[in-house]
Amino acid sequence: MTARVLVDGVEADRVSVLDRGLAYGDGLFETLRVVDGAAPLWTRHMARLREGCGRLGLSVPEVDVLAAEFARTACSPDGVVKIILTRGTGERGYAPSPRAAGTRVVMAFPPPVLSPDWYRDGIRVRCCELRLAAQPKLAGIKHLNRLEQVLARAEWSDAAVVEGLLFDQRGNLVSATAANVFVGIGGALLTPPVDACGVAGVLRGALLDALPGARVQTMTKEDLVQADEIFLTSSVRGVLPVRALDERALRVGRQTRAAQSHWRALGFPGAGA
Amino acid sequence: MTARVLVDGVEADRVSVLDRGLAYGDGLFETLRVVDGAAPLWTRHMARLREGCGRLGLSVPEVDVLAAEFARTACSPDGVVKIILTRGTGERGYAPSPRAAGTRVVMAFPPPVLSPDWYRDGIRVRCCELRLAAQPKLAGIKHLNRLEQVLARAEWSDAAVVEGLLFDQRGNLVSATAANVFVGIGGALLTPPVDACGVAGVLRGALLDALPGARVQTMTKEDLVQADEIFLTSSVRGVLPVRALDERALRVGRQTRAAQSHWRALGFPGAGA
Repeated sequence: MTARVLVDGVEADRVSVLDRGLAYGDGLFETLRVVDGAAPLWTRHMARLREGCGRLGLSVPEVDVLAAEFARTACSPDGVVKIILTRGTGERGYAPSPRAAGTRVVMAFPPPVLSPDWYRDGIRVRCCELRLAAQPKLAGIKHLNRLEQVLARAEWSDAAVVEGLLFDQRGNLVSATAANVFVGIGGALLTPPVDACGVAGVLRGALLDALPGARVQTMTKEDLVQADEIFLTSSVRGVLPVRALDERALRVGRQTRAAQSHWRALGFPGAGA
Repeated sequence: MTARVLVDGVEADRVSVLDRGLAYGDGLFETLRVVDGAAPLWTRHMARLREGCGRLGLSVPEVDVLAAEFARTACSPDGVVKIILTRGTGERGYAPSPRAAGTRVVMAFPPPVLSPDWYRDGIRVRCCELRLAAQPKLAGIKHLNRLEQVLARAEWSDAAVVEGLLFDQRGNLVSATAANVFVGIGGALLTPPVDACGVAGVLRGALLDALPGARVQTMTKEDLVQADEIFLTSSVRGVLPVRALDERALRVGRQTRAAQSHWRALGFPGAGA
């Protein structure tokens, strides 16, 4: 039997007003692209969730339970499944109750609406004004404190601009609002560190492991002027070439195409769509 | 008729799994101490909520509606009412839907458990290790992204330690985990700025307006060595003298007693309890 939403394994569409996920953003999430009923990057999503539980001091859910609930909700052959884990309900106060059982939400969404043009010709991207705060205790994991991303995404409403690049307070590139970023410069393929800000994207991790010469390196906004090519990565949207960064036109390069090939090799749909 | 929880004006105890308050901490809260069925600092709470709505781009709720819901939930003569405002439900993605109506939760809690000793003799406080990240776009308002406070509060479990002081990444004092802080040094009464980290507490604001010589000033951890007296302020817990900061004993001074007098003058119970 399939369900659109499971809360702690039971078909439901609501959580308690006392849930600490609502009160404090005290939890984690994962968003998995579903292809033919499976999540090609499942293992990496589970590893990040486990890492996040360790960092926040949450109980690690049993992967078998999550896998079963994923299977129950991922009813369409293609779509997106989102998992939210919180510290569960609590009365007022930041101190976590040692007795709190976590809350587990698993829910299905339709496939993302993606234009094939984006993957062939690239997308328009802007530089956001908001500067990300550095917090090593929260960097890398996919926690529920996402107001910076919400505010950054609210900076523009032009539908022709698909994403926005985010920088930290030193002016170093971090990511897009909902994607990681890779930059091809002089034959190298670089992506920023995520140990002070940002999320360690699962597709970012897969590409760092798979693409020859891909590596983590700090880049300033000024370094981007020398970029030969730029692409964004998201486990939901795949590899998105950047054809324009603010007023500057970019070409879709060899490294971007190699990343798209790897995306397909992982089992995702061709051209991301 | 009284209710313990109202969600958008209706008696309920759950919110949608799609609420952006849960998904991203995309919202605000206020926690009001209730005395004889009223909230003595109501006007300041509403002003901060309005400021937060402006900063996050949320619709400002009608104060009359909140006042009516406050009255419906604040059924005991004494207690605490918590208001949560979120951007409402949305599908996946950080971009706020222009059509989203916010979610409004108003809920009653019993009075806080406070020891009279705390107010007479002071409390034990520690310095937290976590350093707050600087984010001017979110500083001052009482938003729902509170993982830093949760992690800081999880640093200790010794029940004899009531609060922890938080510093920013430059080593400047900001606040306690759930209270503001005032420091008496050489006749001056200082509280840290909250324009890069921290929350502009309503009792902090009332004391800055009321106490002669009270002012905002940056202080380092080293400056605290010269403190003659330190107290914490919270609109729920009132004015808490600090009798020990880590290993160092402090006396409860004249300025602390003046702040406690003002708390009582505002209409709150004597000695905070």
